[in-house]
Amino acid sequence: MTSKRTSESAGRLSGFAKALRVSDGFVLSDVDPAATPNFDGGKAEGQAALEESQAEQADLLERLYAESTAGGTRSVLLIVQGMDTSGKGGIMRHVISVNPQNVKATAFKAPTRAERRHHFLWRIDRALPGPGQLGVFDRSHYEDVLIVRVHELVPEDVWSGRYAEINDFERRVVDRGTTVVKVMAHISAGEQKARLMKRLERPDKHYKYNPGDVDERRLWGAYMDAYQAALSRCSTEHAPWHVVPADHKWYARLAVQQILLEALRGLHLQWPAADFDVEAEKDRLAAT
Amino acid sequence: MTSKRTSESAGRLSGFAKALRVSDGFVLSDVDPAATPNFDGGKAEGQAALEESQAEQADLLERLYAESTAGGTRSVLLIVQGMDTSGKGGIMRHVISVNPQNVKATAFKAPTRAERRHHFLWRIDRALPGPGQLGVFDRSHYEDVLIVRVHELVPEDVWSGRYAEINDFERRVVDRGTTVVKVMAHISAGEQKARLMKRLERPDKHYKYNPGDVDERRLWGAYMDAYQAALSRCSTEHAPWHVVPADHKWYARLAVQQILLEALRGLHLQWPAADFDVEAEKDRLAAT
Repeated sequence: MTSKRTSESAGRLSGFAKALRVSDGFVLSDVDPAATPNFDGGKAEGQAALEESQAEQADLLERLYAESTAGGTRSVLLIVQGMDTSGKGGIMRHVISVNPQNVKATAFKAPTRAERRHHFLWRIDRALPGPGQLGVFDRSHYEDVLIVRVHELVPEDVWSGRYAEINDFERRVVDRGTTVVKVMAHISAGEQKARLMKRLERPDKHYKYNPGDVDERRLWGAYMDAYQAALSRCSTEHAPWHVVPADHKWYARLAVQQILLEALRGLHLQWPAADFDVEAEKDRLAAT
Repeated sequence: MTSKRTSESAGRLSGFAKALRVSDGFVLSDVDPAATPNFDGGKAEGQAALEESQAEQADLLERLYAESTAGGTRSVLLIVQGMDTSGKGGIMRHVISVNPQNVKATAFKAPTRAERRHHFLWRIDRALPGPGQLGVFDRSHYEDVLIVRVHELVPEDVWSGRYAEINDFERRVVDRGTTVVKVMAHISAGEQKARLMKRLERPDKHYKYNPGDVDERRLWGAYMDAYQAALSRCSTEHAPWHVVPADHKWYARLAVQQILLEALRGLHLQWPAADFDVEAEKDRLAAT
């Protein structure tokens, strides 16, 4: 049942964040969406590795929560961006399902009329994770330099200033104790076409299809340019971007999980010490 | 691997809501917290049955969400109450982990100073699920007739009026299209003692222990009286209560899942029809 690869990986995978991180000179068009960097197994091995890491992930998220019950203020925020059909929903389901209680998940749609009256970071600020929580963003403030830029929903002098605003905002978020993990799920135009066709072929997936999706495909190049700019300008030391090849759903899920896991490990989370006399409490409890 | 029971149940379990529903003449102290009503298997069979139902649950929750994308306004709210250590957290993790994206989960703690300035139902109202969502409450407005009554945090003439207020409130929630599923996870005082002792014995569970837990145990009888009153007075036609024996964690998880599943089935959820010309869209997409 278990292959060589999964027996090996049963120990611990590592190096995903480093392998997929956006650094100086990064060029999005050089990334192969069908690649599986830092992992030499196939689908079955990838799914097994995902499952094998779930216990560690649940343990670390519980420690993060436990820390907050003892006054800790740290939290983690996972931001997932990607073109339509890039598999963000599946990533969410597979990566964060381990512990929904301590998770604060937000899917950002087109801003409402009320939201549009505020600064673009207003609704983001309200969705940030509290102490001990894992925040998860399905789309994010990056839409304000992606779809907004591609469709010129605001003038260029407005969106062009947002890269710096985002970096400043994320700097403040990190300074308050939140580890920010940013991931772009990167699919190819061809794979998107196949996934949209599948939605058209399955009546139970029609609700996910929007005729506007086809029109957006004509703007693929403009979207890639906008992603390139966002990735280059906003991959900072305090909040780096990662580009995860996503033509293989199993790989994207595994890679995002591992990047998140590496961030959690980096927090060196410890169980808080009891703030009561354990032996005395045992006696008190025994007497009830 | 699969036992006789799980092969049988592979078809479909049913009847949990009916078996566990609080009806006229209900007496909480007659319920055996160690019983496993409506299920004749043991732990292994129960865990297998839980897992077998997850695909159906995920499918129904996706239909609920899909309906909302086509203008539907229905939603479901699962309310879980129970004494400390009754396993509410585990129920949440195992029951709602199938689809965290469409889930709006709220854990109600002691009200904050800001919340206390409002009517007790104010914070509940804000946590209700939106169209297409599954709302999940870990504790709820029932605390306002449970701990509040036991500790007399407000005068009797205030809390005694809340049963009717709650029934009216839930009536309005149901009228707006939300199916309300209320569950009490019912453990015995002895099982609670064992679970608290375990928390004291495991350093990684110390954070869950509070010396006040032992003091609360002295009020067990008063809590059971308060539960009896809440269950009797607020198990209505539109929002009935269910009491789930919870000394066996595997059973409580399965029973809550099944009660929720039965509620979802009762909605007869259909995939929304496409509001576009499917064949024309296939042609448009093929041309990109």
